[in-house]
Amino acid sequence: MAKQTAETINLCQLLIPEIKQLIQEKNLADLQKLLTEINPIDLAEALPQFPPEHRLLLLRLLKPAELITVFEELDPPEQQFILEHLEDATITPLIEGIPAQNIAALLNKLPKTIVRRMSKLMSDQRIHTVAMLPIFPKGTAGAAMRADLISITADMTAKAALERLRANLRVRKNMNIQTVYVTFDGGRIAGMLPLQTLISAPPDIRLRDILHTVSGIKVPGTMDQEEAAKLFTKYKLTSAPVVDPDDRLIGVLTLDQILQVVQEEATEDIQKLGAVEALDEPYFDIRFSKMIRKRGAWLGVLFLGELLTASVMGFFEKEIAQALVLVLFIPLIISSGGNSGSQAATLVVRALALREVTLKDWWRVVQREFLSGLALGGILGGVGFLRIYLWSQFSPVYGPHYLLVAVTVGLTLVLIVMWGTLAGSTLPIFLRRFGLDPAVASAPFVATLVDVTGIVIYFATAALLLKGTLL
Amino acid sequence: MAKQTAETINLCQLLIPEIKQLIQEKNLADLQKLLTEINPIDLAEALPQFPPEHRLLLLRLLKPAELITVFEELDPPEQQFILEHLEDATITPLIEGIPAQNIAALLNKLPKTIVRRMSKLMSDQRIHTVAMLPIFPKGTAGAAMRADLISITADMTAKAALERLRANLRVRKNMNIQTVYVTFDGGRIAGMLPLQTLISAPPDIRLRDILHTVSGIKVPGTMDQEEAAKLFTKYKLTSAPVVDPDDRLIGVLTLDQILQVVQEEATEDIQKLGAVEALDEPYFDIRFSKMIRKRGAWLGVLFLGELLTASVMGFFEKEIAQALVLVLFIPLIISSGGNSGSQAATLVVRALALREVTLKDWWRVVQREFLSGLALGGILGGVGFLRIYLWSQFSPVYGPHYLLVAVTVGLTLVLIVMWGTLAGSTLPIFLRRFGLDPAVASAPFVATLVDVTGIVIYFATAALLLKGTLL
Repeated sequence: MAKQTAETINLCQLLIPEIKQLIQEKNLADLQKLLTEINPIDLAEALPQFPPEHRLLLLRLLKPAELITVFEELDPPEQQFILEHLEDATITPLIEGIPAQNIAALLNKLPKTIVRRMSKLMSDQRIHTVAMLPIFPKGTAGAAMRADLISITADMTAKAALERLRANLRVRKNMNIQTVYVTFDGGRIAGMLPLQTLISAPPDIRLRDILHTVSGIKVPGTMDQEEAAKLFTKYKLTSAPVVDPDDRLIGVLTLDQILQVVQEEATEDIQKLGAVEALDEPYFDIRFSKMIRKRGAWLGVLFLGELLTASVMGFFEKEIAQALVLVLFIPLIISSGGNSGSQAATLVVRALALREVTLKDWWRVVQREFLSGLALGGILGGVGFLRIYLWSQFSPVYGPHYLLVAVTVGLTLVLIVMWGTLAGSTLPIFLRRFGLDPAVASAPFVATLVDVTGIVIYFATAALLLKGTLL
Repeated sequence: MAKQTAETINLCQLLIPEIKQLIQEKNLADLQKLLTEINPIDLAEALPQFPPEHRLLLLRLLKPAELITVFEELDPPEQQFILEHLEDATITPLIEGIPAQNIAALLNKLPKTIVRRMSKLMSDQRIHTVAMLPIFPKGTAGAAMRADLISITADMTAKAALERLRANLRVRKNMNIQTVYVTFDGGRIAGMLPLQTLISAPPDIRLRDILHTVSGIKVPGTMDQEEAAKLFTKYKLTSAPVVDPDDRLIGVLTLDQILQVVQEEATEDIQKLGAVEALDEPYFDIRFSKMIRKRGAWLGVLFLGELLTASVMGFFEKEIAQALVLVLFIPLIISSGGNSGSQAATLVVRALALREVTLKDWWRVVQREFLSGLALGGILGGVGFLRIYLWSQFSPVYGPHYLLVAVTVGLTLVLIVMWGTLAGSTLPIFLRRFGLDPAVASAPFVATLVDVTGIVIYFATAALLLKGTLL
């Protein structure tokens, strides 16, 4: 039951017939009331089901805060349609309420006629903010932050600060403020104040006397989003100020943006661990040719690596011809090595990403994985030995030297699981050490590495144990 | 540079010598000032570096809000030590400020003498709240929510509501309020108000006239945390009310708790995809025996599956003996199938987790992956064919029928990559369809599945193409 809730409950879908009916009856009062019960994100999702003129009607009935949310959810062509067709009175609060970077992005995409209309509706201060926005590359904290700030300085009284907040919030309806960032004159950051502290402060107190410096973790605009996300996780932040190199406040990063970053990073790591270049797009959205390129690249590299197995096998051709029984266990042996290596690599890659393990722990990891490999290899080797030994009591398939074969396979399994475990666990640490992404140590990558070396281990062990009997 | 910031900047570490010096000089005024500059989470991390009596001294100098944060970061034995040794005046605000569930958890773990002391220090109302806490199993929204609420009812004026908030925030210092949840008398949820709306409202207005119902997404206490996280992502929530079956407000879930859930879910999926049972504990914290059990279980199952390869190979013993050259390509072929299968499975598992793909999309997935398999198989098959064909121009290693061998290997590669891709992409959908976790379709699991069938495909293709020549 609970499992399904999120997928099935969507009030808006249920209400569509009623909405359509109210539109037909031109009963706008009841329609407006009904719309207040619908989440704007659901409404945005349902909008394409209405003809264009009805969409405009619905949008006109929304409160500004909801209109902004709906608008931001829509695709660019739909946004353009709205900006072309809604009247000034509806569009003005919309334009004032959208975060400045999003306005900047919109202006870059829209045809000139609409841009002209929009800039006429924007306040001078707003145009200035949009024009002065600092530009940060994708993936940095600066690119993800909210850049239009309400200026609150340390010399203000609590009362004055609250009044400025109120005035601004009346215009920017859906701005979400939990923490107020306070600057000195000139824009250098002075500290922060949780909104609740500001509210419960005596009205005449100066902000400089109550502001917090303690949790004042500052994020440089150029910092990697992933690093910023780690700060949020470690310090349990709900927001953080973004600063320029001179320590001036240039924006605010909030937890909901960080949540997106964390989701994207996890997706990227998962895809890399599955030996796909990160798709960066939803599965059905990515172009087929692009997906084939991203998957084919890694698959091709792994294939070239696997080609070595054929060469290595060629090298042992004589042994293979002499002891054909050994061939039967090649898939079993190489994949046991690959599986244990994939496991170890996955664990260490994730532990590195979560900082449960850092570079200086490498020796502890080696010790732990050496013992893990020994234990796991012992189990698999034991089962492998018993399988051949017991089977041979009933069938002659493994020949007269079945006991030696069983020992060879069992011992090889111990060795190869240990080797797979050690290689899989240390490879990500090596990659990180040399500045590369540990997630490159994907399950298939480690498996391929262990395949090639595994064949060598197998035939070397066989040569040692079977010399004079089978070989 | 930016990459390192999060790991290296920790003001507290730098200040430890200075702190130690100030303690020695008994310069408590300067020490207290210095402590305000340190993030409490860093301080909690550094605390073990001080002898016990100095720890108590440092804690006494903290403001209540910081003391609570430090306390909540510490390990249980350290918490017990603090509760035993700090004086009433310091402990009282601590006990009042910790969320009610955490207090309940503490009381369950501590020795009776400390529990008695704590309950003497707690207000009657607080004891009542803690005693009446609803109990939810781990993994539900109810278990993650903050349960001690400030009661705000719809009949209150904005002014009265703000006053009640202020009074409560003075006691519960580090409570983080962004949204106020409003109830009717009797506790049924009426709606919500962003704190900023409450602040900017006219003082005498009744809450019932300004509260929002629109974004009022309600989370049942029994809902799976993972489902709640999906609501937060979809509706971009920063908090959500948690309700009982009678729609009574029982707690609040905030985005920072959801962030943890998202991180944990991603870790679980990653570990499952790497064929480890979810560890549920950091890499270095989990007991060795427990880790071996969690890794060994899957490795053992995969090994039993892989044992089938030996049986299948035994079945083709005659063919192997006749055409030894085929053996050389077994590792290449089975791992190409395994790799392409792992890729496809990883992509689909993650897309299912993010709801980019749902069950009803299964046919679209099959079509897409059929074409992907054809394209990727074509590439690998082509390279494999050329490798054998060209090599044979210089070396007799593949015998007189090298062209037929090249065709056999190339064609097998096309077939096996298609099979791997289809199996890897549909398996997670099947698992989900039957209520199982799609992430069970791990890279090694798919690889093992494809290994066994891959050998059959290889020798069947060979039998077809090489009959009368090599076989």
